[in-house]
Amino acid sequence: MDIFSFYMPTRLYFGSGAVKKLGKARLPEGKGLIITGGTSTTRLGYVDRVADALLEAGHETLVYNKVQPNPTIEGVRACAAICREEGVSFVVGLGGGSSIDTAKAVAVMATNDGDWWDYIHGGSGGGKRITKDALPIVAVPTTAGTGTEADPFTVITNGEEKIGGGGEKCFPTISVVDPDFMMTVPPHLTAYQGFDAFFHAAEGYLASCANPISEMFSLRAVELIGKSLPTAVHDGGNADARADVALANTLAGFVETLSSCTGEHAIEHALSAYHPELPHGAGLIMISKAYWSRFFASSGGRLVALAKALGKTDAKTPEDFIDALCALQKQCGVHELRLSGYGVTPEDFGKIADNAIDTMGGLFRVDPHPLSRGDIIEILQESCR
Amino acid sequence: MDIFSFYMPTRLYFGSGAVKKLGKARLPEGKGLIITGGTSTTRLGYVDRVADALLEAGHETLVYNKVQPNPTIEGVRACAAICREEGVSFVVGLGGGSSIDTAKAVAVMATNDGDWWDYIHGGSGGGKRITKDALPIVAVPTTAGTGTEADPFTVITNGEEKIGGGGEKCFPTISVVDPDFMMTVPPHLTAYQGFDAFFHAAEGYLASCANPISEMFSLRAVELIGKSLPTAVHDGGNADARADVALANTLAGFVETLSSCTGEHAIEHALSAYHPELPHGAGLIMISKAYWSRFFASSGGRLVALAKALGKTDAKTPEDFIDALCALQKQCGVHELRLSGYGVTPEDFGKIADNAIDTMGGLFRVDPHPLSRGDIIEILQESCR
Repeated sequence: MDIFSFYMPTRLYFGSGAVKKLGKARLPEGKGLIITGGTSTTRLGYVDRVADALLEAGHETLVYNKVQPNPTIEGVRACAAICREEGVSFVVGLGGGSSIDTAKAVAVMATNDGDWWDYIHGGSGGGKRITKDALPIVAVPTTAGTGTEADPFTVITNGEEKIGGGGEKCFPTISVVDPDFMMTVPPHLTAYQGFDAFFHAAEGYLASCANPISEMFSLRAVELIGKSLPTAVHDGGNADARADVALANTLAGFVETLSSCTGEHAIEHALSAYHPELPHGAGLIMISKAYWSRFFASSGGRLVALAKALGKTDAKTPEDFIDALCALQKQCGVHELRLSGYGVTPEDFGKIADNAIDTMGGLFRVDPHPLSRGDIIEILQESCR
Repeated sequence: MDIFSFYMPTRLYFGSGAVKKLGKARLPEGKGLIITGGTSTTRLGYVDRVADALLEAGHETLVYNKVQPNPTIEGVRACAAICREEGVSFVVGLGGGSSIDTAKAVAVMATNDGDWWDYIHGGSGGGKRITKDALPIVAVPTTAGTGTEADPFTVITNGEEKIGGGGEKCFPTISVVDPDFMMTVPPHLTAYQGFDAFFHAAEGYLASCANPISEMFSLRAVELIGKSLPTAVHDGGNADARADVALANTLAGFVETLSSCTGEHAIEHALSAYHPELPHGAGLIMISKAYWSRFFASSGGRLVALAKALGKTDAKTPEDFIDALCALQKQCGVHELRLSGYGVTPEDFGKIADNAIDTMGGLFRVDPHPLSRGDIIEILQESCR
C-alpha cells in the first residue's frame, strides 16, 4: 500500500431540511454575500430560505444573482468588489457548480491582492500562489453533479480560456446538501448531472492514484447512482431517490478531492470547449463506452468491482461493467445520444485530442496506462458509431 | 434520511514510511514537544524518526517521555508547563492512546486559562468551555486500537476520576498512521486493541445515530479486521495485515467522530474502572456475545450486514453475526477469556451497572433500544458463563 493522504476539512450537513443548519452556523460576524444564478434559485424560494436561516444566526445578506452557466472572471470581479466595498464576512454559493465555483474564486479575491487570474496556473494565468486565507465559503448545491461542495476546485472562464484553479484555501467551510433543493431539476439534466457524478466516482476508482479511502467513497457513490438515478430521472419528486443521488454526488466530490478524474474528463472538457451547447454529462455518456473499453486488459478487476457496485453482483469480466453502464444509461433514457447531434464531426477529432492533451494533460497521467493522441482520436471515432 | 453532518478536519497520512511526511509538514514555526511513554517508542527508535522528520521541516523538538498507560492530569500539567516555559509551537503525541490523549489535553492547556480539569464536563470537572484554539496537535499512533488519531476525544485520569473530554478543538491537525510503528506489538495486545477498533466500528454501525457516511466507514473497518486481524495477531511481522488493521482502526476512529459508541463501551469502561488490570479490549470481547444478542429483534438487519462484512456472505439471521464474531475471536486466540480471571465476581455487577449508567449513561441512549440496569446486570451474568 502506497502512502496516501486524507484531507477534507469542510463541515458538511446533509439531508432534507439541512438548510436550517445555517441558522446555527459558526461564521465570522457580519454580513454574507449570496452568489447565485438569476432564475430558479430565486423563483423557487431557495435564496430566501438561505437568507432566512443566516438571519437566524445573526447575519444579514446581500445577493448577487447574475452568475452565468459558465461562470466568468467578470462575475468574480464584480462580486469581489462588492465584498470589499460592503465589508462582507463570508460568501455563499447557491446553485449549480457555476455559483459555487464563483463563490470560491470570490472568496480568494476578496482577501488576496490582484485578480483571480493572477492565481491561475496555465494559459494566460499569472501562476501566483494564493497566500492569504479566503473568506469562509458556504456551498449550497441545487444540482447533483459537480461535487464542488466537497472539493477545493473551481473552474472560471476568462474570454476563451476556461481553466481550473483553487486549492486548499478553496474548500468550503460549510456545505449544506439539502436534496429538497434538487426536486425540480428536469429529467434530462438530472441524468446528465448524475452521470457526471458517476464518472467522478468511477474515474477516481480507475485512477492510478486511487487509495483505500477514495475507493470506499467511489464504490458507494456508484452503488447509490446505480440504485436510484433512474428513479430520480423518471420520478423527480421521489425524495428518497433524490437523496441517494445527492449523497452519491457529494461522495463523488470526496473522490475528486482524494483521488482524481482521468483522461475521460479531459477528452470531454475538450469536446465541450468546442461545443459549448454540449452538456458535460452528456459528453461523458457518449464517450464512456469507448473510453472504458480501453482498460479491459490493464484494469479488468477494477471494472468488475464497479460492475458489482452497479448491482451486477455476478460480474466476472470487465465487459460486465460496460453492460451494466449501458443498461443504466438506457434506464435513464440517455443511451441514444449522438455526438453528431451536437455538431461534432470527424474533422474536429484532431484538434479535440490536442486540446485535451494541452489543457488537461495531467488527467491522462493517472489513467491505468497512457492513452496516445491516436488513442484519443480512436475513442472519439468509436463514440460516433 | 435524517439530517447528518460530516466533519473531520484532520490531515491524515497513511502507509508504511508515512512518518517521512512530517518532513514537509506545515506547522507553525518553532519547536515541538514530543509526548510519549518511557520505553518502547524510544528503544525502537520511533522518537528519533519523528524528531528527525520534524527537524527536516525546520522544527527542533523537546521530548517528554513519562506518559503512563492511564494518562494522568499530573502528566498533562507537567507538559503544559513545558509548553509555556519553552514557548512550544505544537505538540506531538507518539504512542498508544495515552500519549495522544495527553497531547490533546496539553494542547488545550497551553493556550487556555486554568487547568484541564476546568474544561471537564462531569464528575468534579469545572464544566468550562474551551475558548481558544489549542496548539496544533500531531498524532502518531503506535497501536491500532483507540482511533484517537481520527477523533477529537481524550480521556484523562484525575485521582479516581477517569473522564472523557475534548471536542472540536482537540482534532489532531496532522495524524501520521505508519504501520511500521506497529510491527512489534505482541499478539495478545494486537488482538485486544484490534477488537477495541472492531467494536468502535460495529457499535457505531448499531448506534441509532449512525449515518450513511459513518456506516460506510464501519463496514469497511469490520471487513478489514475480519480479513486481517488473525494474521496480524499470529504473524505480527506481516506488513499487509498490520496495514489493514491500522487502516481499520483509523476508519473506526472516523466512526467514533461521525457516529458513537454504544452501551457496550459504557459497560466495559465500568468494568475496567474497578479492575484496572483488565485490558479494555479484553473486557469488550468478554461481554460482546451477551451484549449483541440483546439486539436480535430490534436490529437484526444491522447484525446481518455486520456478519456479511465479517466475510459470512450468506448471512441471513442476526445469530450469524454472533457466530462470525465468535469465530473471529477464536481465530485470534481470545475466545477463552473469562471475567473471573480478572477478579470480576457477581457481587460487583450492581455497582458496575451503576457506574456505567452514572459515568457514561449517554452511550446507552444511542443503543437501538434502552437497556435497563437489570439488562446490564444480565449481560454481565451471561458473560460469566
